Amino acid sequence: MVLFKMNSSSVKVIPLGGIDEIGKNITAIEYKDEIIVIDCGAGFPDEEMYGVDLVIPDISYLLDNKDKVKGFFITHGHEDHIGALPYVLKQLNAPVYGTKLTLGIIENKLKEHNIISECNLNSVKNREIIDVGTLKVEFIRNTHSISDSCCIAVHTPEGIILHTGDFKIDYTPIDGLVMDLERISKLGEEGVLLLMADSTNVERKGHSMSERTIGETFNRIFDKADGRIIVATFASNIHRMQQIADASISRGRKIVFSGRSMENISNVAMGLGYLNIPEDCIINVDDMKNYSNNEITIITTGSQGEPMAALARIAFSNHRKISIEKDDLFIISASPIPGNDKMVSKVINQLFKKGAEVIYKDLEDVHVSGHAYQEELKLIHTLVHPKYFMPVHGEYRHLKQHGDLAHKLGLNNENIFKLDTGEVLELEKDKANVCGKVRTGKVFVDGLGVGDVGNIVLRDRRALAEDGMLTVVVTIEKETYSIASGPDIITRGFVYVKESEELIKKVKDIARDELEKCLDNKIVEWYVLKTSMRKAIEKFLYEKTKRRPNIIPIIMEV
Amino acid sequence: MVLFKMNSSSVKVIPLGGIDEIGKNITAIEYKDEIIVIDCGAGFPDEEMYGVDLVIPDISYLLDNKDKVKGFFITHGHEDHIGALPYVLKQLNAPVYGTKLTLGIIENKLKEHNIISECNLNSVKNREIIDVGTLKVEFIRNTHSISDSCCIAVHTPEGIILHTGDFKIDYTPIDGLVMDLERISKLGEEGVLLLMADSTNVERKGHSMSERTIGETFNRIFDKADGRIIVATFASNIHRMQQIADASISRGRKIVFSGRSMENISNVAMGLGYLNIPEDCIINVDDMKNYSNNEITIITTGSQGEPMAALARIAFSNHRKISIEKDDLFIISASPIPGNDKMVSKVINQLFKKGAEVIYKDLEDVHVSGHAYQEELKLIHTLVHPKYFMPVHGEYRHLKQHGDLAHKLGLNNENIFKLDTGEVLELEKDKANVCGKVRTGKVFVDGLGVGDVGNIVLRDRRALAEDGMLTVVVTIEKETYSIASGPDIITRGFVYVKESEELIKKVKDIARDELEKCLDNKIVEWYVLKTSMRKAIEKFLYEKTKRRPNIIPIIMEV
Repeated sequence: MVLFKMNSSSVKVIPLGGIDEIGKNITAIEYKDEIIVIDCGAGFPDEEMYGVDLVIPDISYLLDNKDKVKGFFITHGHEDHIGALPYVLKQLNAPVYGTKLTLGIIENKLKEHNIISECNLNSVKNREIIDVGTLKVEFIRNTHSISDSCCIAVHTPEGIILHTGDFKIDYTPIDGLVMDLERISKLGEEGVLLLMADSTNVERKGHSMSERTIGETFNRIFDKADGRIIVATFASNIHRMQQIADASISRGRKIVFSGRSMENISNVAMGLGYLNIPEDCIINVDDMKNYSNNEITIITTGSQGEPMAALARIAFSNHRKISIEKDDLFIISASPIPGNDKMVSKVINQLFKKGAEVIYKDLEDVHVSGHAYQEELKLIHTLVHPKYFMPVHGEYRHLKQHGDLAHKLGLNNENIFKLDTGEVLELEKDKANVCGKVRTGKVFVDGLGVGDVGNIVLRDRRALAEDGMLTVVVTIEKETYSIASGPDIITRGFVYVKESEELIKKVKDIARDELEKCLDNKIVEWYVLKTSMRKAIEKFLYEKTKRRPNIIPIIMEV
Repeated sequence: MVLFKMNSSSVKVIPLGGIDEIGKNITAIEYKDEIIVIDCGAGFPDEEMYGVDLVIPDISYLLDNKDKVKGFFITHGHEDHIGALPYVLKQLNAPVYGTKLTLGIIENKLKEHNIISECNLNSVKNREIIDVGTLKVEFIRNTHSISDSCCIAVHTPEGIILHTGDFKIDYTPIDGLVMDLERISKLGEEGVLLLMADSTNVERKGHSMSERTIGETFNRIFDKADGRIIVATFASNIHRMQQIADASISRGRKIVFSGRSMENISNVAMGLGYLNIPEDCIINVDDMKNYSNNEITIITTGSQGEPMAALARIAFSNHRKISIEKDDLFIISASPIPGNDKMVSKVINQLFKKGAEVIYKDLEDVHVSGHAYQEELKLIHTLVHPKYFMPVHGEYRHLKQHGDLAHKLGLNNENIFKLDTGEVLELEKDKANVCGKVRTGKVFVDGLGVGDVGNIVLRDRRALAEDGMLTVVVTIEKETYSIASGPDIITRGFVYVKESEELIKKVKDIARDELEKCLDNKIVEWYVLKTSMRKAIEKFLYEKTKRRPNIIPIIMEV
């Protein structure tokens, strides 16, 4: 389904996700018979999406143009940029390009999904240009809360498109590799047709703090610790891990990695040389007993309070190997992502109740953001001074503020494009306009099912969650059209049956009366019988309880 | 149920709610045959409490000691301090004491519940002492985000118990009525046995800003507005309303109140003289058409993004009377309460998409907190210098930090009591200890039902929400023990039935096979038949889908 008519020699930019939402980042850039795809991320279900494990983008447009797709070009290894790859590659197996660490993390993921052997992964370096035909795709190093992160510049016959990826400007990164501002500045000088830039922190004034400042806080806090130190952080934040490890090792502490993703990613990062910890400084969780508590630092998952992750398991005493001990000092080195505050709070409360000390963002500077604040964004806009601008990676409020920021820096409002997901921005050297919309959307992953849970199923789950359900079953004798058995009532999630025997009895009576009334009137269509019963029960229950359980009438014929 | 043995001449302090939680504030203070109750608040359901509208405290202890209860003494008119009153007074009709505005708001509530005529409401003034027998209860003015708020001092034979209520220290309150620090200081001088103090903002350094600073921001923002101004705020924040009204009137704007609670509380507040707006400056929503847009300010509910409140209705174009117009300026004059961030964000995004301007806390200082920061708490602790201290009104993390703050100010840790809800603190002149625990808990209000939804019902709702349900019905011929009809399968919230015909057909086969196997083996106990079917289906579905829908087997007999 393509709803647009385009000039065949123009370049099209189509965000298939990541616009007006946090997560699910994926953008197609098309020129004639070539499409390159930047990122392929997953989104996370919001509280309305009952039972959904993961949200991935609808890639119908790519599947309809399968032959054009030259590859997936990945800016960095965060879930919201790579999480959909295993699902998408199963349907559209194009080459994947990314830096070494990014690919290492992707590889891990593809192995878990058992599709690694069929995939074509290609490692790239800073300033490397991949030639896919007419389009040339250049990777340019930036700084972010994960190592080896990149901007991507797409060189097209109509001009350069620069996508910042997720970034901040850290002048003192832990690995010493600062953002390649020189190259970006050079591109600006050559002339950039379109800038697409990270909008996450556009509402924050000033400049984000360097990751390095956290290290100073760790040093100060570690000096006062008498027992074990347990730090929860994002598994992908290698630089954070490095700083925790450095502060530990210099104080004679060994490192234990806890939690599946923490173990996986630290392994990948050490294997590839992104995380430098002497081998004898890492111990297994089972070997902790050979060390005294002030010789141990545990780096663990669960910084978002996730109930199944290691930190929450430790707090609520259901971790298989780690339980809280005297003088334990917990550090939650992360900010709660919006929506996770309550879960994080539950874990903090529980740790305090168990007598542990806990340090978190409200008390100390134990976290910095990985996304650019206003002054950093201004620098990029100023260096790049593009002809057109499209804010990306943000909810609409962020896109709006980012558009306003670009405007304040001198860009005309007509040159700023706040797109909807799926909208097609058509670009020529001196022209840009939204020329149509392609199919996009959310595909839900629930258990093993991809796409078999949709809005109707979710609507039912929501209704069931609110007021539960009530099933009324009755058997009808098909020759005489009389009730052979029932009505029987079964409820779940509605009321305590014990306390409501009266109510349930009344529902039975109502169902029987309604049914008999219909049958007496020679109404025998099942649909009508069911609807009549349902409506009569609904009305009665709403009057009595002001609730609307999902009422499921079942008629059996014998 | 009383699980403690106490010295009959001691004073007991029993928090029945509000400890280790935000909300549901209620504390009993008991001496011999007298009990006074401070506050009677409601809590709000968390995301796990599917379908629950309101949470109220379990007051079994008060009901068991009905004759002792001398009254409810209410510190201020916020929901988390008065919300349970209509439910509690129905079971235990004791006199209610509070300041004029507090009672006005309570009255409104009791009218809605049709119990106002039976209730005994008593208005009190600053420094007024209510003599209930041996215990004397004194109201002392404080400052908070609602007018007419109080601390409560209970004079007992063993000493003074001072409960701060919710408070901040605002030296420039809008009504000019500063917190009665003199009286508090005097009590400190006389000697306070126990201080109970608000812990909400103990994690925030420094001093909260005065409510008056918001007025300055409003003035600046209002000067730039060309169209209507629509401000969403808490209906109970009379001073905020006053400042919005003042800024509007001085710019020739009329005021429209929108949203049920906004209309109710503004009426009460104006009637009682707490909100001063000339009559001709207030117009009805229907009269807006007689004014140009720059002559209108709308003050509305919905600052938490609540989907059914006025602001969200306006944003999503389903408000009956107000739709977005050109140059509308929205101000969200509130902070999202933890857990509400996403809802608020949805509304902001939608308003921007509709082309309106929106100003919110991340962009401008349009909100201040009503709870004391660290320096304010230190002032109170220093003035009161109590013998014992009990932090209240907070999650455990807040109680912990507040205890640490008191300790840093010089109090011994043995004199600091971080209680659990229901724990009984026994106090004598020179002695304090936790001596037991009474029954407490959460009572769920769902529709008209109070307490008929409990943990089993919630567990079922949670399971239904996750993976939906699958009902398998079969009719058995009771003489031959053979299947007369079915099995039939009905699902809700599980999978798209259309796309899963194969799966459902297989479930039918499995159910039939299992049932026939049992019947062939002369197993005829329904319980066993049902369990066998359920288990077989569960196993199959989990293998196929990794989901666990609630499986409900029904057997009918004919």
